[in-house]
Formats: sequence, C-alpha cells, structure tokens
Amino acid sequence: MTQIEVRKKILAENEARAATLRERFDARGALVLNLISSPGSGKTSLLEATARRMADEVEMGALVGDIATELDAERLRAAGLPAHQIVTAGACHLDARFVEDALAAAPFALPELLFVENVGNLVCPASYVLGEDYKVALLSVTEGADKPFKYPAIFTRAAVTLITKVDLAEHVDFDLAKVREHVLSLNPAARVLELSVRTGQGLDAWCALLREGVAAKRGARAEALA
Amino acid sequence: MTQIEVRKKILAENEARAATLRERFDARGALVLNLISSPGSGKTSLLEATARRMADEVEMGALVGDIATELDAERLRAAGLPAHQIVTAGACHLDARFVEDALAAAPFALPELLFVENVGNLVCPASYVLGEDYKVALLSVTEGADKPFKYPAIFTRAAVTLITKVDLAEHVDFDLAKVREHVLSLNPAARVLELSVRTGQGLDAWCALLREGVAAKRGARAEALA
Repeated sequence: MTQIEVRKKILAENEARAATLRERFDARGALVLNLISSPGSGKTSLLEATARRMADEVEMGALVGDIATELDAERLRAAGLPAHQIVTAGACHLDARFVEDALAAAPFALPELLFVENVGNLVCPASYVLGEDYKVALLSVTEGADKPFKYPAIFTRAAVTLITKVDLAEHVDFDLAKVREHVLSLNPAARVLELSVRTGQGLDAWCALLREGVAAKRGARAEALA
Repeated sequence: MTQIEVRKKILAENEARAATLRERFDARGALVLNLISSPGSGKTSLLEATARRMADEVEMGALVGDIATELDAERLRAAGLPAHQIVTAGACHLDARFVEDALAAAPFALPELLFVENVGNLVCPASYVLGEDYKVALLSVTEGADKPFKYPAIFTRAAVTLITKVDLAEHVDFDLAKVREHVLSLNPAARVLELSVRTGQGLDAWCALLREGVAAKRGARAEALA
C-alpha cells in the first residue's frame, strides 16, 4: 500500500470504530465533547472550573490524552472530576481505539457528560473522530489572532470555539472581533464564546451550553426508549 | 506493510534525504536552525526581531511552514528577512522533501544563516530531521510550566530552548527556574534562554548565540577548503 492508501485505511477504520462508540454514547444519553487545542490553551483549567461549578448537578467524567505524564488527570481528580489518563506514548492525537480502551479501563461508568481532552495539538486531532457529539476548539488570546486561518481544519470542524485567557487580552495584540469573524467565515454555524477561567468571564455561558446539551441528550434518549 | 513498517520506512527515507541536505548546508558553510513550537509561541515574532537586529551583518533567509496561508512569510519579508512560504496543505510537520523543494523554489540562494520555521506543533515536527545544525524549541510562559514533561521528545532533542513572552510571566503562573530545571533534566546539554520580543529581554544573548554559530560554520568551511 502507498502512504496515502495506508492513511485512508486508518481513517476509515477509525470512523467505523467511532460510529460504534457514538451508538453507545447515544444509547446511554451521554453528551460527549472532544476538546482540541494547542498545548497550554487552557483545556485542563477549563475542565477544573467546570467541575467546580457543575459537579453537583451533572454526572461528569473525563478522558485525558497526553503523550507523557499523568499530570492532567491528577489535576482533574483534585478538582472533583473523575478522570482517566490516556498516555499515548508518542501518538500525536487520540483515536477511537484509545477512547474504547480508556472507557474499559476507567474507574467510572460512562457519565451523562464525558469530556475527552485531546493531546495538545491543533493539527492532527482534527482528523480523528472519537464518537463525540461535537468538537470544542480552544484558542487562547496569547496565541495570536491569525490562528483560525492558519489551522483551518479544526476551526471549520469545531461546533464551538472558545477564546480563552481573555483576561490577558489587554497585554497582547489580539482583536477579538476579528477572530470571531474569521472563525465564523470558516464555520458559519459555530458558537464562539469568550472565556477567562481566571476571572470567571464567560463561564456562565459555557455551563449553560453544557446544560443545554445534556438536557437534549437526555430528551433524545427518553424519546428513543418511549 | 503494517502501519509501523510504513512509518519506519518514511522516517528512514527522510533521514537519508536530510543527510544529503546537511552535506549541502555544510559545503556552503550555512548555519541552519529548525524552529519548533506550539502555534503562537512566537517563532515568527522572534525572526522579525532577529532580522531587524542582524540583517545588516549576516546574510539570512527563512523557510516558513504552515498548513495554510502565506501570512508568516509576508511578515518576515516586511521585516527585511528574505522568506519563502511552504504551504503543507494539511501536513502537520515539515520533512526534508519540503525543505528540498522550498530551497529550489525560494527566490534567494542558500544564505549563511537559514531559519526553518516549522509548522506550529509541539509533537510531530520533533521526529523529522531537516538537515539542520540544531533544533530550537520555543515555549511561551502562557503555555504553562508543565509542558517539557508533557512533550518530552522536542525538549530532549532541541539543543536550544527559548522561554518566550517572559514579559507576561507576572500575569500567569509560570515558574521559570523550575522549567529551566525540567528542560535540563531532559537534555543536560541544552541552552535555555529567557526572551521577550516585546521588551527586548534576552535578544542580545540570542543574537550572540547565532553569531557564534555562524562563525563556527564559516570556520569549519574555511578549514575544509584549506
């Protein structure tokens, strides 16, 4: 097989596996989000803050992908979010098989709201579906406003884009309005939220979005069972 | 071939091609640096600042890899640095073939100091040599101090690690001494510099390092020709 054929085969196998995962998520009525960003855009911090706000009202869990270390899962557990670390041992993205194996190994049952925190990488994770309901892209203001056009795949495919660390916007050159416009030009249906875990800005809107999604999945499951 | 065999073959072919590039660089006496970081760590800003300081004394050029857009090459040319954009059209890293093709297409001859600005990705570029003298890893303080251990391949392989945006250190939780220690634990021979393009901090040390490298390559070439 040529390199292109191998890649096509890998992606096709992954999609089949992800479709099976998605059926399982839907049967449970679980909302599953695939969080993708550069290293250090604030995925783990956002999940910590989310757990602190919502752990009492929604049953949550997280699978956390990293090339090395268990640091992120430890941080999430300390914040009250059941979390299982996926150490990819070099792989630059999660695929459906990692998620399958992690669900089998995790010390918690599939919750109503499952976060899959991908490896910090704005490129490769965009090509691998994991059975998620939707992708969430994070872009911190310190990364610069040119990123949506430079990494179009993820910003085209993410239903939600979170502009993070907006408390630092005054210290860097970042035009929030322009970035919002760029993201929407790539994906006109995208929801774009501005967030700061440090100040709390935007967290109400983010949690409202999660509640809305969880309620919709619950409703769809109840209908399917009726 | 299995997936692992395909990957091994790709890496072996790339290394052979990179070795040929390296011979060519050495024959010219050109110092070639491969800059690797997350998106938005400040690779392009650093090259702009470097060009403004050193364009008069050293003949420089840049090859700039991005998945999409010509934005970075345009920025560099505006700063006085001859630059050729490599649009990878989806590929998450540069390989030696991209560099070969770019050198053939670039509107400048191989300079004394060639920067290869890789695709913004802390993972995949670490595996592909480009014939460079050494790799330079950039890590901005806003990305968090846990990154060297979470992305060990690049920090192990980079001869120089630049901690960038240190002017923002007071606004974020980033322990410079600890990060330096972590980088050195992965690569005891690494040189670690703290930089801020905004304030100019560390740029003298960075330019001194470049001058030292350029002089060494010039010297080696003169010796080879003598």
